[in-house]
Amino acid sequence: MKILVVSAHPDPASLTNALRDVALGQLQADGHEVRITDLYVEGWKSHVDRADFPALPDAARLRVPAASSEAFATGTLTDDVIAEQAKLVWADALILVFPLWWFSMPAILKGWIDRVYAYGFAYGVGEHSETRWGDRYGEGTLAGKRAMLVVTAGGWEAHYGPRGINGAIDDLLFPIQHGVLFYPGYAVLPPFVVYRADSMGESSFAAEAESLRARMRTLFSTAPLPFRRQNGGDYAIPSMELRPDLAPHLTSFAVHLDTAQQGIGPTP
Amino acid sequence: MKILVVSAHPDPASLTNALRDVALGQLQADGHEVRITDLYVEGWKSHVDRADFPALPDAARLRVPAASSEAFATGTLTDDVIAEQAKLVWADALILVFPLWWFSMPAILKGWIDRVYAYGFAYGVGEHSETRWGDRYGEGTLAGKRAMLVVTAGGWEAHYGPRGINGAIDDLLFPIQHGVLFYPGYAVLPPFVVYRADSMGESSFAAEAESLRARMRTLFSTAPLPFRRQNGGDYAIPSMELRPDLAPHLTSFAVHLDTAQQGIGPTP
Repeated sequence: MKILVVSAHPDPASLTNALRDVALGQLQADGHEVRITDLYVEGWKSHVDRADFPALPDAARLRVPAASSEAFATGTLTDDVIAEQAKLVWADALILVFPLWWFSMPAILKGWIDRVYAYGFAYGVGEHSETRWGDRYGEGTLAGKRAMLVVTAGGWEAHYGPRGINGAIDDLLFPIQHGVLFYPGYAVLPPFVVYRADSMGESSFAAEAESLRARMRTLFSTAPLPFRRQNGGDYAIPSMELRPDLAPHLTSFAVHLDTAQQGIGPTP
Repeated sequence: MKILVVSAHPDPASLTNALRDVALGQLQADGHEVRITDLYVEGWKSHVDRADFPALPDAARLRVPAASSEAFATGTLTDDVIAEQAKLVWADALILVFPLWWFSMPAILKGWIDRVYAYGFAYGVGEHSETRWGDRYGEGTLAGKRAMLVVTAGGWEAHYGPRGINGAIDDLLFPIQHGVLFYPGYAVLPPFVVYRADSMGESSFAAEAESLRARMRTLFSTAPLPFRRQNGGDYAIPSMELRPDLAPHLTSFAVHLDTAQQGIGPTP
């Protein structure tokens, strides 16, 4: 299979990059074809601005969704963005590897999302009508593919537990796993999270590396998180609220998981 | 009072920047002293890298927390970061104004957090021992100050409702409100969120502007979100898990709100 690994740590010798290389080694050993986007090595431009839309007339306002839509449709996005979109289309699986900074991804990786996820590519896809709100949340350009996060966190695991002070890791990652990955169609695998990243000894690293290798060996067989598909009947249109009979009375992120599901698997 | 407004939209004529200017106008009309950091106008450098730590020896690894701690302690952070830290210390209130891109802040604003929030300034503050886990979540360098988000979102309000498909807005903003603002000490006010930002007409704008002016007039009297203080007795040390008798059996972000509280107010 084909796998794209995107990593975002400025220190080549970091734990984050060491884990990336462990993943890479296992995937290659298993015969997969792997490509890497190391955002720091590539000098990735983080912020969306006018330079992203070279065909936008000087006098025109920068309305980001409209500019993005026009540039995507006419093939006038910048070369770096076009190259990353091609990698996403090429890959059967996407792995994002990053340190958790301030409970989210580093700016350079957020900028990769903000710029590569063009209108017409990652959003604004499919029919929008009275009865259908586009192809998203389980459908879209990247449907049929898998995605997974590999995250290093400085804090203790308990602090990210269900009642830990930082907030539960599953909820902290929801905007990424559901909002960034599931949205354009990916089936999202459970994340691989390493805690106390700044104080990890060699024996702990060896254990984490072995766990990560195991996750790589099962990349195409692990059951994805059972996020509910937008167009599977669970949500009302156009309010896009979960039907009252499903997970009744609950209001947390967890309502968007169908715990009765066995895992949604790649779209047939 | 003194207020810092940080904004992050690349289009000077955007709704986001129009709302920023509405807020600014009201604050100035009320006699406050206001400073602005417009990250796009300033050409803010988004990503953390070695250039942020000019005193770091060439041969040394870039261990971000250690490099950040050393540079903050020795006053060798870069001038742009030092200037922003001084503004944060100067201001009685911080207002972040941004479009919600992929369910979080734009990369350029995340990069402002990643770079300005140095070790010793925004984290790694206070005593760390068997009985105390530092000054954070309600205590820290920025305690006694207030912070508030002004957010523009493209989607419909119902889609961000308690059971909306995007996830509840309060939960989507938790990593920012709790993890970025409450963490270094801010009392966090309820956010001001505008929906359907890309299709707003003039009459809707006028109504939103009036609501925002009202929020600005009450910036120092509105009750903050009742996030639980780390060192107020609600969390066990060192696991930092919420005591079992508080919000029993619940595990969502909501457990970190003390709904019996009237609002935590500025630290005395």
